[in-house]
Amino acid sequence: MEEMEFDLLFGLVEENKLKELKAELIEMPYADIAEFIMLIENEKTAVKVFRILPKDISADVFAYLDSDSQEIIVRRITDREIQLLMEDLFVDDAVDFLEEVPANVVRRVLANTDKETRETINKFLEYPDNSAGSVMTNEMVELHDTFTVGEAIKNIRRTGVDKETIYTCYVIDKSRHLVGTIPLRRLILNDEDTLLTEIMSDDEQLISVRTLDDQEEVALVAKKYDLLSIPVVDKENRLVGIITIDDIVDIIDEEATEDFEKMANLRPSDDEYLKTKILSLAKNRIPWLVLLLVSSTFTGQIIEGFESKLAVVAGLTACIPMLMGTGGNSGSQVSTLIIRGLALGEIKTRDYLKVLWKEIRVSVLVGLVLALVNVLRMIVLRYTIGNDASDSVILVVSLSVWCVVIVAKIMGCTLPIVAKILKLDPAMMTGPMISTVVDAISLLIYFALANALIQF
Amino acid sequence: MEEMEFDLLFGLVEENKLKELKAELIEMPYADIAEFIMLIENEKTAVKVFRILPKDISADVFAYLDSDSQEIIVRRITDREIQLLMEDLFVDDAVDFLEEVPANVVRRVLANTDKETRETINKFLEYPDNSAGSVMTNEMVELHDTFTVGEAIKNIRRTGVDKETIYTCYVIDKSRHLVGTIPLRRLILNDEDTLLTEIMSDDEQLISVRTLDDQEEVALVAKKYDLLSIPVVDKENRLVGIITIDDIVDIIDEEATEDFEKMANLRPSDDEYLKTKILSLAKNRIPWLVLLLVSSTFTGQIIEGFESKLAVVAGLTACIPMLMGTGGNSGSQVSTLIIRGLALGEIKTRDYLKVLWKEIRVSVLVGLVLALVNVLRMIVLRYTIGNDASDSVILVVSLSVWCVVIVAKIMGCTLPIVAKILKLDPAMMTGPMISTVVDAISLLIYFALANALIQF
Repeated sequence: MEEMEFDLLFGLVEENKLKELKAELIEMPYADIAEFIMLIENEKTAVKVFRILPKDISADVFAYLDSDSQEIIVRRITDREIQLLMEDLFVDDAVDFLEEVPANVVRRVLANTDKETRETINKFLEYPDNSAGSVMTNEMVELHDTFTVGEAIKNIRRTGVDKETIYTCYVIDKSRHLVGTIPLRRLILNDEDTLLTEIMSDDEQLISVRTLDDQEEVALVAKKYDLLSIPVVDKENRLVGIITIDDIVDIIDEEATEDFEKMANLRPSDDEYLKTKILSLAKNRIPWLVLLLVSSTFTGQIIEGFESKLAVVAGLTACIPMLMGTGGNSGSQVSTLIIRGLALGEIKTRDYLKVLWKEIRVSVLVGLVLALVNVLRMIVLRYTIGNDASDSVILVVSLSVWCVVIVAKIMGCTLPIVAKILKLDPAMMTGPMISTVVDAISLLIYFALANALIQF
Repeated sequence: MEEMEFDLLFGLVEENKLKELKAELIEMPYADIAEFIMLIENEKTAVKVFRILPKDISADVFAYLDSDSQEIIVRRITDREIQLLMEDLFVDDAVDFLEEVPANVVRRVLANTDKETRETINKFLEYPDNSAGSVMTNEMVELHDTFTVGEAIKNIRRTGVDKETIYTCYVIDKSRHLVGTIPLRRLILNDEDTLLTEIMSDDEQLISVRTLDDQEEVALVAKKYDLLSIPVVDKENRLVGIITIDDIVDIIDEEATEDFEKMANLRPSDDEYLKTKILSLAKNRIPWLVLLLVSSTFTGQIIEGFESKLAVVAGLTACIPMLMGTGGNSGSQVSTLIIRGLALGEIKTRDYLKVLWKEIRVSVLVGLVLALVNVLRMIVLRYTIGNDASDSVILVVSLSVWCVVIVAKIMGCTLPIVAKILKLDPAMMTGPMISTVVDAISLLIYFALANALIQF
């Protein structure tokens, strides 16, 4: 949406020209109406604008609002308006919204929801966070396995307007077992009296997930089979809901963001940065920083044990940051590739030996290049600014670079895969650990080589 | 797909029971057939299995193969088979495949493609990498703005089988200008003689992208409006193609992977880790490692200038890794949040002052907590292992921690936003820079405080 167009709308709000405003709004995509409402600073005005929306689009717009704005609106509209809203809202959007607002708002909303929907919502709210059940909706097209194509289309015409998607229809038997799926496309392109059972995908072609499956797994399945929606079944293979592709896309973004956060030593959070309070931001950051600070005691001790020699040999201390930096960077290059590969399903734990062998070869090569660059760097320093590192210091530092790169790469590919095998989260375990472990090992290698090769 | 089921298939391959194998395969989802073929180690066997697939599904399976397997197959099948394959392949899948294989394979494939398709493919291949044009397909449903619903459905029934999606139809005028979109759902739920122009989305509701738009922008648009496909238009607003949601999902994964790689100091690469050659892996890693190694000369010089004092005051040197680590970690926590927020469109450059003010408050708080933890840590060390850091050293180190956290957080939010304003890539510019800049500043703060507060 162009800012210019929003300016026009803001003008109408200010002049209180609600009729003109409404006329403009109803021509806009729902996502843009929602964006506009979220930009209005004054709560009262935002709610006023929401209220002028016609009933048939207000629930659609509501679903696009963030939870803060949803809460503000629900707190200020009447019970009757809540009731109408809940009638039109899809169950997955209602659940998303109710998961984010305080308990008293949830109670008031559910009190104004018809019994059947309330029971469904309550059931969905009970599924664990990030499970398939918690993101599904129950507004799918269900067709009986006795239907013909003509009956199916008639059924869709009658009930389709209330369904979240009609593009994939689900075929169930008398006991609600999922027995097949059929894309609307195949219905349209077949004759009216074809039986559904003749053209539906069944048996091995039938892809479904369980209510308690992790949403990350669900996203992998959707991506692998290019599905527009995935059926969710219970333990008895009865159809209980579907997850649509727009939610899959959100899950993909969410999971990637979570991995970004974990690898940057943050506690993952579902909230948008700009909407997170100072205290929550601090709380997400402090744990790992404290842990890493405390664990740096190890590296401190290693240096302390070597301090007398560092004081005597010129140039040794100055290279510590470079060595630790090179180790950390080399390690995180690999661990990032592996963590991402595991998350996308491109790397499996059974590939470990293949990965390790690859990394050994790569690291020998990369380490050699870096060691040579370091020799060059230190010789240049000697002849330009008169750095007084001796030949043996240059040798020790450069050899250390080589070894450190090799060790860091081996750790970088091993840690995430081991985490995965132990059923721990590779991103969570490796991001913070890699630097501490590699730092300590780098220093030990450095000082061991210095002890062996430099005469004190 | 369960491994057990694959075992059964492998058994059939070994016993050369091709008929039974074919019967099993055609019951499977295309993605699973492709997975199975990619698991066959022997090239000849893989091609043999591909060849037993019936003509109507072989192109679908081919589209799910990775480019290595695609190349192997195309090199071993006849010209006639290539011709049949190209007839059935969607243009976007054909373009994906041709972008990855060597020029001689491209020439052979195009020589066996009918003229019209060849011209389309050649045009699509010319669009720059990562542009909307390079990922679109031209197999969309085009309806004329004079049609009724009945005529539209008849048209879809006639031509739909060759379209990549029929779920969103595009309404064009005589000159092929895009004038509206209409979801199949709305067609199905409306009367036969309704005119398309009465029910299509037009004007402001019409979302489209241009051929040269960046694919990242395209993904943001698709996510914002929850679209199943996006129309792509040329400069004159003529419809030239569509991008379907399965490609959008791939783009989202690709762009996130790219950001992961850039932030881990890697040159981004489109190839899967396990399929990348040793030399390419090394080439992607060496540039930033060398740059960071060379730039660590600054930190080395800073330490060198202070070496005589480090040698005198016990405990100062040992804290250097902790300080630099804390600075680096604090900085990357923020920069990660900001880079991700910018990528998802949740943070805009105009939010900079808001972000900065937030980070100043968060960092004062986080820094204080870390400084106190550090005081505690160093006192514990004194009374347990008899660490001989004096009170003033503890004060200097802890004050430095506080300052370093504040500076790191300010840099962490400033660098990505400045990069974005300068139209540089925030992930590329910030990932590598943040550690070098924060390392140097951390040391300067540390030594300045030491100079001021410790009597030598």
